[in-house]
Amino acid sequence: MITPSHDDGPVEAPESGAAFGQEWPRRVAILGVGLLGGSVALAVRRIRPQTTFIGYSRTPGKLDQALGLGVIDQTSDSIAEACRDCDVVVVATPVDRIAPLVVEAAGASPPTCLITDVGSTKAKILADVAKHPQAARKFVAAHPIAGSEKSGNQHAVADLLDGKIVVLTANTATDPAWLARAERFWTLTGGSTCWMSGEDHDAHLAAISHVPHLVSALVARMVPPQARSLVGSGWRDITRVAAGDPEMWTAICQENRQAICQELQRLSEELTRLQQIISQSQDEALTQWLGEAKRVKEQS
Amino acid sequence: MITPSHDDGPVEAPESGAAFGQEWPRRVAILGVGLLGGSVALAVRRIRPQTTFIGYSRTPGKLDQALGLGVIDQTSDSIAEACRDCDVVVVATPVDRIAPLVVEAAGASPPTCLITDVGSTKAKILADVAKHPQAARKFVAAHPIAGSEKSGNQHAVADLLDGKIVVLTANTATDPAWLARAERFWTLTGGSTCWMSGEDHDAHLAAISHVPHLVSALVARMVPPQARSLVGSGWRDITRVAAGDPEMWTAICQENRQAICQELQRLSEELTRLQQIISQSQDEALTQWLGEAKRVKEQS
Repeated sequence: MITPSHDDGPVEAPESGAAFGQEWPRRVAILGVGLLGGSVALAVRRIRPQTTFIGYSRTPGKLDQALGLGVIDQTSDSIAEACRDCDVVVVATPVDRIAPLVVEAAGASPPTCLITDVGSTKAKILADVAKHPQAARKFVAAHPIAGSEKSGNQHAVADLLDGKIVVLTANTATDPAWLARAERFWTLTGGSTCWMSGEDHDAHLAAISHVPHLVSALVARMVPPQARSLVGSGWRDITRVAAGDPEMWTAICQENRQAICQELQRLSEELTRLQQIISQSQDEALTQWLGEAKRVKEQS
Repeated sequence: MITPSHDDGPVEAPESGAAFGQEWPRRVAILGVGLLGGSVALAVRRIRPQTTFIGYSRTPGKLDQALGLGVIDQTSDSIAEACRDCDVVVVATPVDRIAPLVVEAAGASPPTCLITDVGSTKAKILADVAKHPQAARKFVAAHPIAGSEKSGNQHAVADLLDGKIVVLTANTATDPAWLARAERFWTLTGGSTCWMSGEDHDAHLAAISHVPHLVSALVARMVPPQARSLVGSGWRDITRVAAGDPEMWTAICQENRQAICQELQRLSEELTRLQQIISQSQDEALTQWLGEAKRVKEQS
């Protein structure tokens, strides 16, 4: 038995011969070194200064930038090389490219390596990876609920995940020893972990993130050109996330299409009800409707 | 002729015998001493420290609080007494009570007194005041596009209007000399004035403020209870204004019902189009749709 580390993370039975204490993880590959991947590296580095972070990206310029900024320690132009000899691989690409990279990383990494991700959608990624039992065994999906409308590793910060929820999810093909390993790794980032099924995650995220993002973009699109100079702080806050990357959000809609469509339908029905309340001058009902929104907001 | 004051505000011909320089306004009544009314007083006080601010409210507790905080210098429990001998009266109540207070203040104030307001809607207030020619002559409507989801004079701050747009509007019954007076007063708050018809104001504000507010409340209302702990910074920004006062926003919907209904209809049609794009997997169209939102956001 090894001694549990000093932090409050869960204790797990170690694999035979594997060191799993203060030195873990020795090497971490970050596949896709953007805002989130970079922030994960910077976050873990705070309490694991000896860990080596290896970055991989399809775009060499991003890798050079991350190296120059000290976000990663080494670069690699091959996934196989990046993952070789790693304890953890974090796949931090747009969601539509996560599953194939997880499968590739699982094949290229040591048998005890944890493969995890940062994707905003989960069910389809888990289902795609489940078709590859060797990969599914090593994969615990993760979604750190943290981000920014900015993108790129030049915006990565060490405290991005501090106190933020990290949703963890796995399927039945995942080896149980990997669940504790994932919990341990994500606790090292400063985040607070919780477990959920991929389906629940995707339904909840459609309601609290994906559809709100689309609504923010909708509000932005509706400004008449001649009224742009009049926008105030309310509009600016509502539309902040509308500056997010269109391709990244298209990929999220692809991956979570069903839950997003259901949630858009629910939104549409609620909007119709609001239109009736206002057009029929049901002012008391409107005050109640707004009051309920205020209560939810103040409790969240 | 008097010498124009040192600031860059417009120069106007003075009324016979009226001092209209550094000493103006000597006395300002604030009818409704909340976040906005209080902030106007604090703002003007910065460059007119000798000006006396008299507060009136239906709620004595709010007045005592404003006096205690130094937001106003005197209190009054009567509109007639508050407005007597004032150079400016600012009506800063919820929008549904502005027009009758403007009429009452116009009757109770000296002949040269400017009556102005801070309402988020304009056309109906102007139309209601226009039925009273003596009041309409002295009234220039104003909407400082500044605020907060907070309310109450304890949140009033001197710089709330700094650099913010103040939309000014008047109708044909307004005496032209009052237009420059209104411009002068609102420039003293730190705001930047612009002129617009009441109808244009209301249509623009429905698009950039009133309907976005309703949408923010809609997003807040749609959080499933079990997902509340997962909300992130995007959701928090989108729903910030949903914490606003339900009665104040009901009054805004009452006063600007027609423009808001039109804008909600436009929103509903755009939402239907978005639902089609996503449900039919038109991913290229979705990227373009999101890209247009990003462009508008970044230009605003």
